[in-house]
Amino acid sequence: MPAEIELLPQGTVTSAAGFKAGATFAGINKSAGNKPDLGILFSESACAAAGLFTTNQIKAAPVRLCQQKLPGNRMRAVVANSGCANAATGKQGQDDAAAMSTLAARHLGITAEDVLVASTGIIGERLPMALVEKGIKDINLSGDGGHQLAEAIMTTDTIPKEVAVAAGGFVVGGVAKGSGMIHPQLGTLLCFLSTDARVSPGLLSSALRKAVDVSLNMVSIDGDISPNDTVLIMANGLSGSKPINPGTEQQSLFQQALDQVCIHLARAIASDGEGASKLIEVTVRQAASIDQARLAARAIVSSPLVKAAVHGNDPNWGRIIAAAGRSGADMVESRLGLSIGGLCLVKAGVAVPFDKDGVIIAMGDSRVTIELELNMGEATATAWGCDLSAEYVAINSSYSS
Amino acid sequence: MPAEIELLPQGTVTSAAGFKAGATFAGINKSAGNKPDLGILFSESACAAAGLFTTNQIKAAPVRLCQQKLPGNRMRAVVANSGCANAATGKQGQDDAAAMSTLAARHLGITAEDVLVASTGIIGERLPMALVEKGIKDINLSGDGGHQLAEAIMTTDTIPKEVAVAAGGFVVGGVAKGSGMIHPQLGTLLCFLSTDARVSPGLLSSALRKAVDVSLNMVSIDGDISPNDTVLIMANGLSGSKPINPGTEQQSLFQQALDQVCIHLARAIASDGEGASKLIEVTVRQAASIDQARLAARAIVSSPLVKAAVHGNDPNWGRIIAAAGRSGADMVESRLGLSIGGLCLVKAGVAVPFDKDGVIIAMGDSRVTIELELNMGEATATAWGCDLSAEYVAINSSYSS
Repeated sequence: MPAEIELLPQGTVTSAAGFKAGATFAGINKSAGNKPDLGILFSESACAAAGLFTTNQIKAAPVRLCQQKLPGNRMRAVVANSGCANAATGKQGQDDAAAMSTLAARHLGITAEDVLVASTGIIGERLPMALVEKGIKDINLSGDGGHQLAEAIMTTDTIPKEVAVAAGGFVVGGVAKGSGMIHPQLGTLLCFLSTDARVSPGLLSSALRKAVDVSLNMVSIDGDISPNDTVLIMANGLSGSKPINPGTEQQSLFQQALDQVCIHLARAIASDGEGASKLIEVTVRQAASIDQARLAARAIVSSPLVKAAVHGNDPNWGRIIAAAGRSGADMVESRLGLSIGGLCLVKAGVAVPFDKDGVIIAMGDSRVTIELELNMGEATATAWGCDLSAEYVAINSSYSS
Repeated sequence: MPAEIELLPQGTVTSAAGFKAGATFAGINKSAGNKPDLGILFSESACAAAGLFTTNQIKAAPVRLCQQKLPGNRMRAVVANSGCANAATGKQGQDDAAAMSTLAARHLGITAEDVLVASTGIIGERLPMALVEKGIKDINLSGDGGHQLAEAIMTTDTIPKEVAVAAGGFVVGGVAKGSGMIHPQLGTLLCFLSTDARVSPGLLSSALRKAVDVSLNMVSIDGDISPNDTVLIMANGLSGSKPINPGTEQQSLFQQALDQVCIHLARAIASDGEGASKLIEVTVRQAASIDQARLAARAIVSSPLVKAAVHGNDPNWGRIIAAAGRSGADMVESRLGLSIGGLCLVKAGVAVPFDKDGVIIAMGDSRVTIELELNMGEATATAWGCDLSAEYVAINSSYSS
């Protein structure tokens, strides 16, 4: 992390000034024990807000609702649930998502127009609106309620994901839940970010896009894209620090802080992939362009054969090169270099004698690094994923009922 | 299968007139017990020949060699091994592939120019040329040697894949090994086809492309593409039947026969995917175009979440619709229809009351059919795959040595 940016202990989405959150067990997520399954993030004053959403053509009702409202400059709250995705639910689903925002707005004493909605869970089932209505009334907000919200959006996640950093007189924080981690349904990424920096909705949108491109978009658990994937950011400007203006040092600092928050959450999501026992970090260097570096890094980290080999500490490097070769990134076999855990296995496209036991030991670590050099240009990208274990299959082959 | 096309009992790649084959255990594939690992397909007279190869930018040496020689009109033989891919082996690998064709040509009394080469197995290791040389000398050809060749190219395949059909006075036959089935290396598709029909190299090339588009290209085991994927066809014209001329009924019959052979092999490959317990057959109907139908069918059949759900007999239909939604095929949620095992689950984009026990029973079958209707146009495509089991992970996480 850059020196100007400070990681806050116990940091979360309510670490920035003027943000509160809370959650309750409403009974929507029946497999969750009594873990919270319904939560609210609230700002004391109006926020610039922006969002990024699933590219799936099948979009959940709450995603459609958020897309209508964003970007905006008077948002106040997000209400979110786990246990039901409210996706593939037709007109009824849209009415339910709108009603959920109205119920939250009533509880918070604000207008429904200023409330965003997110859901994750089973596709094709209606939201249990009676439980939602009762649950929202039970939610108490507090200045450290971010932790509860992080729990409320968890499904098969094993640990809550939250972080906050301080820089330049402002704070950026966030909570997230993982992709490819939902039992029994399709993995959804939800990420709610907050900041007390003063930013316009337009600048916030472009900063969010940049941060997500180097972080959450570089995570692959299983290659599926959920109809509910949602990343939201709200900026209330309550820090009193200098406004974030285009081309200023303050803007650069804000971007770096947002990048770091998103990368932290991305790594946490990858580490906690369904059935995962280790984090895989793939860096592709010297690609012809940043897009090509990203293509290659993502292809490697999402290859089932690479993921299974990492699971078994198998230095089966041909799979890594083959995954890159089908990624669409330009490469020339005779220029490739490859290292695992910092140990070189391939130079100029052919195997070099390597310390096989050393590589096997490096692959046994909880974080396995793979570095591929293309020698085609200057661009670098990093992607994160996890190993493929028998437990992933066990989790995802269970009955949905 | 159309009525004019007859499935030959015990049919294989040597069922067409003038083709012989043989194989031996050369010791290249050390994990194969004493299953043959080196084989030859031979035609008594010169053949029109065509091939289709991996789209991976990392291409194995034998693939490069075949690409230089094809399409051609005087091919006589294919020599193939399992146990070593001869991929990522640099200049040495190209010399070894050329030497392998020379050794086979010498054994067969023909010229090396007329011999094609294919390999499958570990990436990054040199072919053991002393074993190849000795092994080739041990190969005896016979008119039913296709069975041995089918065995020689197997790796983690559990059954040999071979078929032949007769139609219009000619025979089309083939052998194949599966994709995503190789322990301990990346899954390779190898398919060798033969016919005694009289066809020009140009027409043979286009017929092969059409047949592969509806068969082998519609199989997905794990989404990885091997540097060694190779489909070859040789036509020697020895049947004495009418020549296959463009626009004739005979051409249509030849295309249908070739399609059927390739579809048979494609289904056999999907059924025998690593760790697979069932065949998944996905048909997408009423797509706006054939390309879109194929995109959607392939996305569904290769989704890890769909594959895991099928493994567990879990009627978790949201995963199917979500996979189609991210495929790139145009769709409108409110027009979707979905059936599993012939039982309707979704109409107009929303769940209908369905016989859940009936669907669970249908999913327990060794062949699970999924049908998605897009209601966007007239195009239909079918894709084949297999379920995702814990055994797949076990197979693919073992040490490569």
